[in-house]
Amino acid sequence: MVKQERAARTRRSLIRAAAEVFAEVGFVPASLGAISKRAGVSNGALHFHFANKNMLAEAVEAEAAETVRRLTEGVRARQDDPLQSVVDATHELMGHLAGDVVVRGGFGLAGDIARRTESPLRKEWQRWVEDSLRRAERSGALAQGVSWADASRVIVAATVGLEVLGGTDASWLSRQNVTRFWELLLPRLTDRPQAGTLVSSGSAAPAPHGHLPA
Amino acid sequence: MVKQERAARTRRSLIRAAAEVFAEVGFVPASLGAISKRAGVSNGALHFHFANKNMLAEAVEAEAAETVRRLTEGVRARQDDPLQSVVDATHELMGHLAGDVVVRGGFGLAGDIARRTESPLRKEWQRWVEDSLRRAERSGALAQGVSWADASRVIVAATVGLEVLGGTDASWLSRQNVTRFWELLLPRLTDRPQAGTLVSSGSAAPAPHGHLPA
Repeated sequence: MVKQERAARTRRSLIRAAAEVFAEVGFVPASLGAISKRAGVSNGALHFHFANKNMLAEAVEAEAAETVRRLTEGVRARQDDPLQSVVDATHELMGHLAGDVVVRGGFGLAGDIARRTESPLRKEWQRWVEDSLRRAERSGALAQGVSWADASRVIVAATVGLEVLGGTDASWLSRQNVTRFWELLLPRLTDRPQAGTLVSSGSAAPAPHGHLPA
Repeated sequence: MVKQERAARTRRSLIRAAAEVFAEVGFVPASLGAISKRAGVSNGALHFHFANKNMLAEAVEAEAAETVRRLTEGVRARQDDPLQSVVDATHELMGHLAGDVVVRGGFGLAGDIARRTESPLRKEWQRWVEDSLRRAERSGALAQGVSWADASRVIVAATVGLEVLGGTDASWLSRQNVTRFWELLLPRLTDRPQAGTLVSSGSAAPAPHGHLPA
């Protein structure tokens, strides 16, 4: 393995190990020693890549944000219907929260009071949901009297709630749970005749939660 | 002031100060020195009441849980309609999260990974919502095809989301925001003829958020 490849691989192991340790004990009690040990590298190697714990946390958040961006862009590329794309993205996001420790760690850091930095993750998710609902409103897909802002607010609050509750009880993140959420909400969001074509369980061939494609 | 009264007063000051410091910096970085200073008492007085930081955190959570219990019992005592009682309790809870540092600190501790203890607060809220929705279902108040479990799940997820998002942006907790949430959700939860009598903004004469009765 050439040197550059090895360095990139070490960096990825460190980010993954940091995400695991942050998710287990929280940011402040997490020690760099525990993280390098978990990654199977020396303290020196850790410090070569990351000057301090905060830079590790930022790398976890950046990688989680990149995953969320890929996920939302992927959904939008293959699903024209803006409402269905929000349903699909919610399923994919919950699947990543259940099965991808970097995404879970990234959102966990966002909720850690001790970090005090503005997290890109929840904000980015909120913006994407709002943008999708604006498209839905423009295309006439929303029910009479339902605005994109009202719909986004409920969806963002509920998905943040599922994320947080899923941190201690993974059943909140299950496909079944998310499907029931949409079965309840979708009939209120749209009154167009083709409402019945929206799929609460997601329109994509589902990857089982916890077993996500790379 | 008799000695017992003074002790009770010191204890209350310490709980309040601890809630403030926990809410500001998180549980792990919070120092007992900062808490006793904030409460205006000596370290010795703090240790007379609380052996360690964990006992202070438990006292904050217990007082917050007591407030939530009083709140939900009060709502149920004056509001017979189970759906309306959930609407009313949500408004009151968000008002306390916005204006009562002990309630906010208690919920913040519930979300602190570093604490690792099962928090009574979110569980208790969830149980109350579930119990109210079961009553609503039994009285025939829920719409065809909507179960108490589905309805509770959405309400609990959304209210936990509002609580968490409200920690960095208080507008999520505003009466207006909570009212819009219910304006969107209520028409889906019930199809009984008297649905129009449910009040999304709450049926009680509202105490302005942030200015709650003692």
